[in-house]
Amino acid sequence: MLSEPHRRYNILTGEWILVSPHRTKRPWQGKTEKSNSDQRPKYDPACYLCPTNTRANGSINEDYKNTFAFQNDFGAILMDGKKENYDKGLLKAEAEQGICKVVCFSPDHSLTLPEMKVDAITDVVKLWKKEYEELGAIEEINYVQIFENKGDIMGCSNPHPHGQIWAQSTIPEEPRKKAKQQEDYFKTNGTSLLEDYLKQELRTRERVIEENEDFVALVPFWATWPYEVMIIPKKHYQHIGQLNKDEEISFAKIIKLLTTKYDNLFGMSFPYSAGIHQMPTDGKEHLEWHFHMSFYPPLLRSATVKKFMVGYEMFANPQRDITAEQAANTLKALSNTHYSTKTA
Amino acid sequence: MLSEPHRRYNILTGEWILVSPHRTKRPWQGKTEKSNSDQRPKYDPACYLCPTNTRANGSINEDYKNTFAFQNDFGAILMDGKKENYDKGLLKAEAEQGICKVVCFSPDHSLTLPEMKVDAITDVVKLWKKEYEELGAIEEINYVQIFENKGDIMGCSNPHPHGQIWAQSTIPEEPRKKAKQQEDYFKTNGTSLLEDYLKQELRTRERVIEENEDFVALVPFWATWPYEVMIIPKKHYQHIGQLNKDEEISFAKIIKLLTTKYDNLFGMSFPYSAGIHQMPTDGKEHLEWHFHMSFYPPLLRSATVKKFMVGYEMFANPQRDITAEQAANTLKALSNTHYSTKTA
Ligand SMILES: O=P(O)(O)O[C@H]1O[C@H](CO)[C@@H](O)[C@H](O)[C@H]1O
Ligand SMILES: O=P(O)(O)O[C@H]1O[C@H](CO)[C@@H](O)[C@H](O)[C@H]1O
Repeated sequence: MLSEPHRRYNILTGEWILVSPHRTKRPWQGKTEKSNSDQRPKYDPACYLCPTNTRANGSINEDYKNTFAFQNDFGAILMDGKKENYDKGLLKAEAEQGICKVVCFSPDHSLTLPEMKVDAITDVVKLWKKEYEELGAIEEINYVQIFENKGDIMGCSNPHPHGQIWAQSTIPEEPRKKAKQQEDYFKTNGTSLLEDYLKQELRTRERVIEENEDFVALVPFWATWPYEVMIIPKKHYQHIGQLNKDEEISFAKIIKLLTTKYDNLFGMSFPYSAGIHQMPTDGKEHLEWHFHMSFYPPLLRSATVKKFMVGYEMFANPQRDITAEQAANTLKALSNTHYSTKTA
Repeated sequence: MLSEPHRRYNILTGEWILVSPHRTKRPWQGKTEKSNSDQRPKYDPACYLCPTNTRANGSINEDYKNTFAFQNDFGAILMDGKKENYDKGLLKAEAEQGICKVVCFSPDHSLTLPEMKVDAITDVVKLWKKEYEELGAIEEINYVQIFENKGDIMGCSNPHPHGQIWAQSTIPEEPRKKAKQQEDYFKTNGTSLLEDYLKQELRTRERVIEENEDFVALVPFWATWPYEVMIIPKKHYQHIGQLNKDEEISFAKIIKLLTTKYDNLFGMSFPYSAGIHQMPTDGKEHLEWHFHMSFYPPLLRSATVKKFMVGYEMFANPQRDITAEQAANTLKALSNTHYSTKTA
């Protein structure tokens, strides 16, 4: 692989990423993060996500035993918005309709995904499936974004294990780019872009971290974030609704494994944003889509030094210091058992 | 303007931004930043950017009196890289050539742009011009990105007033998008997209913050960051090399004014990444380009609460809470005199 500065092509977005393999040698005198090693109680009376607690708008959470989803009291998109548009010369705006939901992964305030049992993570997968299908069935909803912000460094305002779902009427920019690339490929080759990519990666295994019967976790060739990882189903599924019961468990297993390795990397609860990209729910067939889940973790060198996507990255191009291959080797070598003994 | 959630179209990138005007009401229990109110000496013997000090690689800084530029000792792109490419099935990488420079704005370690005199900022503008032209004249350099990361929250590792320039052989993603949109418009209309946009904004002044003879500072209709601002020259210039002596001063004046307002917003040295987008230096004419300087500040509510571009923003679409019009009104109302008495 190239050892000098180079650009790599992201086949999914059609964009390039700048890679500077030599740059980790540079000294760091800048900002460091507080490393959070907080021990949390299993139940926190002040947490608005714990079972039976009251939320800001007065609603009371169910006494849930596994997972729990509810509509975000401060959603960024709403269903009852007026359908006004704005179109004046070079200024163009469109009303957006949608629903924002919060998805609690567990009633236990002290846990995170890697510390949960496979069964419990499988319940999360089942809930994602249910939400994707129910929200997607609503006439006005054409796209469903499932995601998790983990850690306060990722803007997460509550450590209770949870994710979010924002479902909306238009297709956002990132999935739009990925749809175009997958569609172009499917039209030309009649096969799934990601299925063919997966075959190629499985031949060399240079970037493959883990594999089970139904899923592969790898650092994509074009990874942007230092330890970015993508989980891809081996079957060419358009969305998570297509997973059967065994595949749900396989998905849960590989999520547990990856997030365990993440925590073991710096011996801390590893922050990231994760998201599932899948086909729009606009009623079309979308055979080109191959669903996948990506993890974008910000940490670079240690629990306290992150990669800043700032000046050059904002104005020119994302840039990374370690190569995808280096990141994959590091993650591969890490233990599959969580460093904390909390893991049951 | 629309008061419900909506999407706005960015005429420069061709992408959309999600606006949620009602969302600032949401409570915040998450991460806050340390507000930095450090008093710095005019000279710091430990600073590798102060005059006469020795850098990590042993080089000694000139005893400079105004500005000072040097090649980054840990540049992300290099000129002597081997020109290897990589092309295997779905994996594609290309060698990248380039030069990274550091630009000191002042010998005085204690200052920032708003605290500098207009004359001194004009020297910075002159240096940017010189660097743009000299780097751009190099055969292998086809694009020059001038930028500043200000504040440790923006990954700036040294508070000495400085910016950076990364010059490279390929055109990065952001300017590539902007080039395409400007080119399409120019081909259809025979005029500059930004010149026409500016005319429209100057008619209503809803988003205009400041105007002088040669420049306008405004919150673009499609602003992404809470207090994002764009400085646009009134004349249809492709690059800063075209500025005459008076225009250099006008540019310095409006930079001082905007950054002063920024500092006055939360009564602190206001962090941001700023960058100048201008025509590539690939030898072509690029009549479609209209240069501009943008400021992307991360703070949202106060000196300690920033806007996180995380889960939804990374996987779907950038999202903002306050509207461009609200941000413009707030900035307009702020004093043009720096809150600190340090200003000469
Ligand atoms: O070059 P510096 O100041 O060491 O580094 C800073 O700016 C660079 C260019 O935006 C980024 O790649 C780095 O993540 C950031 O910390
Ligand atoms: O919805 P939350 O958890 O309050 O907010 C968090 O996630 C959102 C979606 O990625 C972001 O827009 C916010 O900036 C972030 O703080």
